[in-house]
Amino acid sequence: MTLSAYPSATLLIACPDQRGIVAAITDFIFRNNGNILHLDQHVDAQENVFFMRVEWSMEGFAIPRESVDAVFGEIGQQFRMRWSLHFSDRNQRMAIFVSKYGHCLYDILARYQSGEWNVDIPVIIGNHPDFEAVAHTFGIDFKLFTMTKDNKAEQEQAQIALLREYKIDFVVLARYMQILSPSFVEAFPNQIINIHHSFLPAFVGAKPYHAAFARGVKIIGATSHYVTGDLDAGPIIEQDITRVNHKDSVEDMIRKGRDIEKLVLSRAIWHHLRRQILIYNNKSVIFG
Amino acid sequence: MTLSAYPSATLLIACPDQRGIVAAITDFIFRNNGNILHLDQHVDAQENVFFMRVEWSMEGFAIPRESVDAVFGEIGQQFRMRWSLHFSDRNQRMAIFVSKYGHCLYDILARYQSGEWNVDIPVIIGNHPDFEAVAHTFGIDFKLFTMTKDNKAEQEQAQIALLREYKIDFVVLARYMQILSPSFVEAFPNQIINIHHSFLPAFVGAKPYHAAFARGVKIIGATSHYVTGDLDAGPIIEQDITRVNHKDSVEDMIRKGRDIEKLVLSRAIWHHLRRQILIYNNKSVIFG
Amino acid sequence: MTLSAYPSATLLIACPDQRGIVAAITDFIFRNNGNILHLDQHVDAQENVFFMRVEWSMEGFAIPRESVDAVFGEIGQQFRMRWSLHFSDRNQRMAIFVSKYGHCLYDILARYQSGEWNVDIPVIIGNHPDFEAVAHTFGIDFKLFTMTKDNKAEQEQAQIALLREYKIDFVVLARYMQILSPSFVEAFPNQIINIHHSFLPAFVGAKPYHAAFARGVKIIGATSHYVTGDLDAGPIIEQDITRVNHKDSVEDMIRKGRDIEKLVLSRAIWHHLRRQILIYNNKSVIFG
Amino acid sequence: MTLSAYPSATLLIACPDQRGIVAAITDFIFRNNGNILHLDQHVDAQENVFFMRVEWSMEGFAIPRESVDAVFGEIGQQFRMRWSLHFSDRNQRMAIFVSKYGHCLYDILARYQSGEWNVDIPVIIGNHPDFEAVAHTFGIDFKLFTMTKDNKAEQEQAQIALLREYKIDFVVLARYMQILSPSFVEAFPNQIINIHHSFLPAFVGAKPYHAAFARGVKIIGATSHYVTGDLDAGPIIEQDITRVNHKDSVEDMIRKGRDIEKLVLSRAIWHHLRRQILIYNNKSVIFG
Repeated sequence: MTLSAYPSATLLIACPDQRGIVAAITDFIFRNNGNILHLDQHVDAQENVFFMRVEWSMEGFAIPRESVDAVFGEIGQQFRMRWSLHFSDRNQRMAIFVSKYGHCLYDILARYQSGEWNVDIPVIIGNHPDFEAVAHTFGIDFKLFTMTKDNKAEQEQAQIALLREYKIDFVVLARYMQILSPSFVEAFPNQIINIHHSFLPAFVGAKPYHAAFARGVKIIGATSHYVTGDLDAGPIIEQDITRVNHKDSVEDMIRKGRDIEKLVLSRAIWHHLRRQILIYNNKSVIFG
Repeated sequence: MTLSAYPSATLLIACPDQRGIVAAITDFIFRNNGNILHLDQHVDAQENVFFMRVEWSMEGFAIPRESVDAVFGEIGQQFRMRWSLHFSDRNQRMAIFVSKYGHCLYDILARYQSGEWNVDIPVIIGNHPDFEAVAHTFGIDFKLFTMTKDNKAEQEQAQIALLREYKIDFVVLARYMQILSPSFVEAFPNQIINIHHSFLPAFVGAKPYHAAFARGVKIIGATSHYVTGDLDAGPIIEQDITRVNHKDSVEDMIRKGRDIEKLVLSRAIWHHLRRQILIYNNKSVIFG
Repeated sequence: MTLSAYPSATLLIACPDQRGIVAAITDFIFRNNGNILHLDQHVDAQENVFFMRVEWSMEGFAIPRESVDAVFGEIGQQFRMRWSLHFSDRNQRMAIFVSKYGHCLYDILARYQSGEWNVDIPVIIGNHPDFEAVAHTFGIDFKLFTMTKDNKAEQEQAQIALLREYKIDFVVLARYMQILSPSFVEAFPNQIINIHHSFLPAFVGAKPYHAAFARGVKIIGATSHYVTGDLDAGPIIEQDITRVNHKDSVEDMIRKGRDIEKLVLSRAIWHHLRRQILIYNNKSVIFG
Repeated sequence: MTLSAYPSATLLIACPDQRGIVAAITDFIFRNNGNILHLDQHVDAQENVFFMRVEWSMEGFAIPRESVDAVFGEIGQQFRMRWSLHFSDRNQRMAIFVSKYGHCLYDILARYQSGEWNVDIPVIIGNHPDFEAVAHTFGIDFKLFTMTKDNKAEQEQAQIALLREYKIDFVVLARYMQILSPSFVEAFPNQIINIHHSFLPAFVGAKPYHAAFARGVKIIGATSHYVTGDLDAGPIIEQDITRVNHKDSVEDMIRKGRDIEKLVLSRAIWHHLRRQILIYNNKSVIFG
């Protein structure tokens, strides 16, 4: 990453693989006087799908930003692309969901306050009130939605309405201890990032550190993924691990694991914010 | 590890935890003029079990080596210990089982030839003939046991007989592509070391790299464990991982994974050779 | 780590190696009805020095806590030990020094607030005012000491006085951008923990990420060490690294490095708090 | 990597950055009916240099392989490129230099024999005779060049002549314990790969593990780099590390380090064989 006074445009593209795609796209940028900053492409040879991320400077670009998408559309349709266009000077709006564990939340907020990320965080949603004061310290609204078996559907609808009201682009579950219903998940497809405290697919579900302890593993891990209707089975964005040994009790694993969880989640958010992720067949292509 | 002209004695101990165990053992060594080289102990607070590994120099030790076990037995029985005694100048005898993949085999043989390990390897057993010439290059016998559904029980009995004949202490499955029957496993309890090409408990069974590719994981791994009657479920000795990304095909994962497999297996063998492993409740204590 | 209602006592010991040390110490604990929770020992064979950390429960221990040190002293003098005795229910008092980077500070404060560490943090000292409000949010005093060439000696004396007043046990330099004078360092021997943003001994001194970028390394790291009179040359407590590649600008290295810095510093503080560190010949023994 | 019956062509390019480079190159491939398999590009914004690696299938490519370089030359000259063109069905020819340590040699030979790499290894050169029999086992010639102060210049000239005779493309120093003279190095610019047993730039020169032990580091590493006239200062290709602690003697570090050395060297060779490396300003761009 290097900084510039001019915004950049980023195109994310997926389409059936065929000859001439890269030539067509880079010619489009070149003819309109764009200077490519980053270009990554990938072909899934098994599925015959082409993926691309290209970022170019808008300095001197011939097409006004509000028309880029439409003009590019001719190429897009020719190659039967799914594509999305993003400009670097438009911050995404992120909501954080929390329960009672603060390590991921603090890690996010410290980055937010230091300006590490280009993001706006207007609201934190909790099913417990524990972090209300912390939210306010960082100048962020806090909304409490207590959850019971009976009110879950209703509360989720209220949450969705609130997220719409705050014009939220994507949601981060920072060790949020509630399973989202399918209808909530469908409202934000590939826009809800979770952190699970194991190296998936090992130890799906509750209490993975207890399961890891019982199995006697020598490494523990954490996995950040997009939430889908299947528990802990969405597209993986990032994973990491740390070593443990026989001296480590479950409590030690939980303590060591927290450090992995917070870094893995924050790296996943970074990729999402930088528009580096393409999803296909429940897997991620990360142009990092 | 430091070298000495005198052998060392190593005691491995497990017993119910109680006060005074360490004092009793170290006093035994001190009274008999032993100099402790390494001492590790661990208490599993949940199970209330005490584990210890103590290694001392036999230089000037008051008890002759053939009597140490018997003399120590008084303490051992007092504390209801399971214990074993080993001398560093007695090499263990190891057999290698192979099929068609050579990376683990070569890694072991290179260490063997360089003298990295104190071990004797008198025989390699294959269910395919591929590595017969390699075995002979390193001065090791090679025995072929082709396997069919019909002859498996018979062949395994012949293998056991051969291992007894060669006075084998422990067996290493160096990517051996046959599942051992329970009766074979029971003949060498906690003496058969396997390498599985995933970070267990993820991807148990066949074709773990294909499963990892399909799931879209960002890390792959390998696990070395003692073989028990349950497939890929024995006590884990060592694990490690490497990163992969969307560019990696299944073939890339297999290639990258081989490097992890061979190191993880060789580290497990190292711990075994150094008498650093205690097994309890299907988990390992590694005093490394 | 497991929790107990009773405090534990921890002895840290270093002395010339000789036979019978472990027996003498464990017999002392056993005779007085102590139950050993952890015991680690190490012999530096090259220097002939013996190191030990032993932790036992004070539940039912025959010697009252205020007399343990004196009673143990007989053994200590017999073996010419340097030793120190600590009780787990007495929190250490830590001061944090900061300048303008907040990532290590936030990492520490989040752990402090969550109760991960048994520590008291009564005061944060800054040479810039940036984190005054943050300190107050966490209920911690903030003291500003602006530094110029002319006032440095005077300000450091005032800092030392303040630390004495707050009864500070040890100091953490959380990316504090001032070099401490020898007289300050001598006031807190092996009680000042620094984080340096390189894998020492590579890239000593200022701007290590710029130097790493210029050299074209494929890994960057961070090192936590006790501060001595020699710049970045004190005993290393903990190190870790992360991978970089040609895509990473200096700014990317700084960003990625921050995550390593904060974890490495916090792990070093953990070892210090847990009384797991012995220093000898400018090196650390970490009984972790 | 995926396999195909048709060879692929790979272009490696470096030139001053300007608009339209990617468009020009991909248009060249597209117009001639080439299907791009991999495309990576990088801009060094500080130095304003553009780097690219593009690999396409020769299946149905309109230009015969013997003419591709000439035809591409028009574009190359227009953009003032340094470029090189390679075809995947032409194996590179590699020579290995060894002394008395065999771990890197065995690691290479096992990959060679298993067919992991597309490479020919016609000759191993030693300054000691230790691995002559090993070379022959793998069907490789072995040439002994004993070195003394007096004969070094002469012997190196004979080595160069031998390498020319064997049509060697590049040389791998597999823990070869002789410093090459500048005239040797100049004969194979960026074609001599060395493995140094430290995480450079820490511990340049002889006995890095002894130096690491003396400094008390918590990580040790290995670095593979192209050899230049400055000792251990050439462009870094690959690095990796492993953890050590106070229990590790120098001998343990040497043992643990060997595993890192061999993997790091083999990964560097892989990148070199796959034509993934571009060198600029004594740094490497690795399109891996």
